[in-house]
Formats: sequence, C-alpha cells, structure tokens
Amino acid sequence: MKKKIKKVNAAILIIGNEILSGRTQDKNIIFLSNWLNLKCGISVNEARIIPDIEKTIVTNILHLSKKFHYVFTTGGIGPTHDDITAKSISKAFNIKYEYHKEAYTILEKYYGKIKFNDGRKKMAKMPRGAKLIYNPSSAAPGFIIKNVLSLPGVPSILNSMIENCKRYLIKGSKTNSETLNLYTVESNISKELGLIQKKYKNFVDIGSYPFFRLGKIGVAVVTRSNSNLKLKNVRKEIINLIKLKKIKILKI
Amino acid sequence: MKKKIKKVNAAILIIGNEILSGRTQDKNIIFLSNWLNLKCGISVNEARIIPDIEKTIVTNILHLSKKFHYVFTTGGIGPTHDDITAKSISKAFNIKYEYHKEAYTILEKYYGKIKFNDGRKKMAKMPRGAKLIYNPSSAAPGFIIKNVLSLPGVPSILNSMIENCKRYLIKGSKTNSETLNLYTVESNISKELGLIQKKYKNFVDIGSYPFFRLGKIGVAVVTRSNSNLKLKNVRKEIINLIKLKKIKILKI
Repeated sequence: MKKKIKKVNAAILIIGNEILSGRTQDKNIIFLSNWLNLKCGISVNEARIIPDIEKTIVTNILHLSKKFHYVFTTGGIGPTHDDITAKSISKAFNIKYEYHKEAYTILEKYYGKIKFNDGRKKMAKMPRGAKLIYNPSSAAPGFIIKNVLSLPGVPSILNSMIENCKRYLIKGSKTNSETLNLYTVESNISKELGLIQKKYKNFVDIGSYPFFRLGKIGVAVVTRSNSNLKLKNVRKEIINLIKLKKIKILKI
Repeated sequence: MKKKIKKVNAAILIIGNEILSGRTQDKNIIFLSNWLNLKCGISVNEARIIPDIEKTIVTNILHLSKKFHYVFTTGGIGPTHDDITAKSISKAFNIKYEYHKEAYTILEKYYGKIKFNDGRKKMAKMPRGAKLIYNPSSAAPGFIIKNVLSLPGVPSILNSMIENCKRYLIKGSKTNSETLNLYTVESNISKELGLIQKKYKNFVDIGSYPFFRLGKIGVAVVTRSNSNLKLKNVRKEIINLIKLKKIKILKI
C-alpha cells in the first residue's frame, strides 16, 4: 500500500459469455466489491458484464480506465480460443502482446517442459511491461498494465490471488457502514429518511432495502460514510425517528 | 408476442448501491438472462451495475437504449428517497414525470385511502405515456417506456412480474445450447477447439469453462447456436476430438 488519498474508486469488468447467457451465477462482483471496500477503502462505482468480443473489450477498457482509478477485469485469461482478455487489453492500449518472461518460466516450471503445450504457453502472453499478479492455486498469473488489473474468472482462483493485488493499489479512506434492521415497511419512514438524507447529502449515504425474514416484512436501513462522527449523528436521528414511530429493531 | 425477427438483443441495467458496495449478491442478472434467452429468444449482450445517481442513470439509459433492442432496469422504483429510476428515465427521454392514473388507482386500492401516504404515492409516478407491467405480489407496477422496461430490485417480486413483460416484447430466434462435461483440462483441447470455433465462427459459439467437482478437474464445453443442424455438426466434431484424445465424458 502506498500513500493515502481520500477517495479512490474502481470499476469491475466481467468478461464472459457464460454470465450473460444465464449459465453461470457471477460471484466475482460481490467478492471484489467487498474486498475493495473493506480492505482497501476503494469504492466500486460501476460494474459491467460483457461478452468475449475483442472490440467490446477494447471499448470498455478504454472507457473505464479513463473514468476510474482502477479497472479490475475477470475472465478470459485461460488457454482456450475464447480467452482473449490479455490480447484485447494490449490492443486497447496499443501495446505489444508478447510472452512475459517470468510468467513463461513460472508456467513451464509448473507444467514441466513436455506438458507445456501451446494453449498453456498462451497464458504467458501479456501486454509488454505488464507486472504479474501471482497465482498460488493454479500458477497462471494475472497481470497489471497501467491501471487495469486482470484476474481469472474462476472464483476460487481469483480469491486465492486477491491479496497479491494489494501492492499495486493506493489505499483510500475506509467507508464505514452501519445497518439497522427495522420491523416496518419502507413507506412508513420514507419521508423522514429522505429529509435526513438531504441534510447529510454530501457526507452520508442512506440506503433502504426491504427484506422478508421468518415470515415478517422489514427494512434494512444502511448508512455509509467516511466520517464516523457524521455516521453517529445520522444514526441518532434515525433512532429518534424509530422511537417516535414506535418501530421495533430486529437484533441479529 | 409479436412477429418473429431473427436476432433480438437486450441489456440489463441494475440500479443500486447495495450491489456495488458488496452488501447484496445480485440475482437478477442470471434470472433475466435465462428468462430472456430461453423464453423469448432474446440474447443479453451486456449488463451493467450502477449506483443510485441521477446523472449516471440518465447517461446509461440513453446509451443502452440506443444500442440494444431492449433495456431492462431493476431497482429504484420503491417509495424511498434513493428510488429515483422512474424520475431519471423521464429525464433521459425528456418526458414529463407524473402520476400514472391506473397505477395510482391500483396502489390506492391496495393500501386503502388512509394508508396511501406520500412515499406510496411516489410509486405511481412514471414517465408520461408509460405502460404498466403488473405486479401480482406487491401491487406496485413496473413500466415500459420506449424500449426500456423498468422492474423492481427485490428478486422475488421481479420474478413474479416477469411474465407480464412478454406482451411488450418481440420474440427472437431461440438459441439452443448443449454442454459436454469432460474429464480433462482446458489446455488439452484448446488448440483443436479453437480450430472448430474458427470453422463455425459465424454460426456456433463455443465456450469452455473449467470446473472442480467431487475432487476432480473438468471442462464444460458449451456450444450455442440458432441452428440445430450446425450445433449437431459441431457436437460431432467435438465427440471425435474426445474419442481421439481418449477423454471421458461426465454424465450428470
């Protein structure tokens, strides 16, 4: 982790037809969002899921890498024909796509010279100048080039690699969040919550999410802020509102 | 369902801070993708998750509604201050945001005149000219305006409403898909699969996805096409490849 600046943001770019076809439930967005928010103080401001089409990847990489501090891609860095992420990122940045010497050595050592076939060799090809994100579970490394970090799509492998991204990231201020689970319906508190949100609009985000639990209807009121003091003040105002309306809090 | 045309596509726009903060696992993308693909022959070409920020919603609605036949939004049509989807869509299309007469009547009847407070009334506000998507589980309707269909974020409610979208959609050609689960590793078949993909590139999509099951490593090879004949031919070629390489098929 390098120096602290205040607001650091990121976008997530999920590359894979299998998510868009409905075949596979994405699990990487929630994992990356939690890790970035809680461990790095980096807020995820957008996520996109796109197909394995070179032109689409190029356009999205260019757009998101300009707009956000970091872009995390997942998927498309394996050995098969539909794994075109590294090549597409090279194209987006107009950088040569070539064998990364260290990645090649890692993979050759992992598979052994005889089993190191063309498909596996492809996993050592990256944009020139990329730095490796080591992979403790299946050897094939991810990489970072400019502000784009490229990770695999298989959640268990991605999860095993995530701590190795940290050295490349600037840490932001941690966002703290609190949740109050209330036995009420949204529209019972919507007006007052709206007023509290207006009062603190530049400091605290207030979200309200209906839930159904054990046959009862409730609302989770989530407050998020970089300032603990402001968070405390908002909480006080919400507690007052709850008392006034005689709403029960669900303890979990 | 109206007349059949060949390729119909859609984008999904998930509106909600709770997904980007990592608080909530999105379940709407996989549900909508499956429903659109399997029931309507509509392929989902992109999905985005964005925060509850008016400017961001407006930009994305304008971009996606131009680029795709349909845009499905989820989230942000409830009674609270962070529910700004209907207002933002009105703004994007420069259409008046006002009470929808029928929606107002439905909600007033559902809640009763006394309990029909301002928060609940807000759920009857939509872009002028919107048509309703009825909600059999909690009354508050979604809507369609131009090619944008707006649905709630709570998965169980969204699921209960989905069939009511059908009347507004033009059906595409159904995409058929087949999966072969193989006991092998990707790089063992990547070269040959790549050649088969090249041969059929305009007709069949071949995807390859590693899996771990019962302690064994495998690859799911998924073929997707509008043409059953082409799908059959590709399957034959893959079966030949499997025999040649003496790879076992996992029957599920």
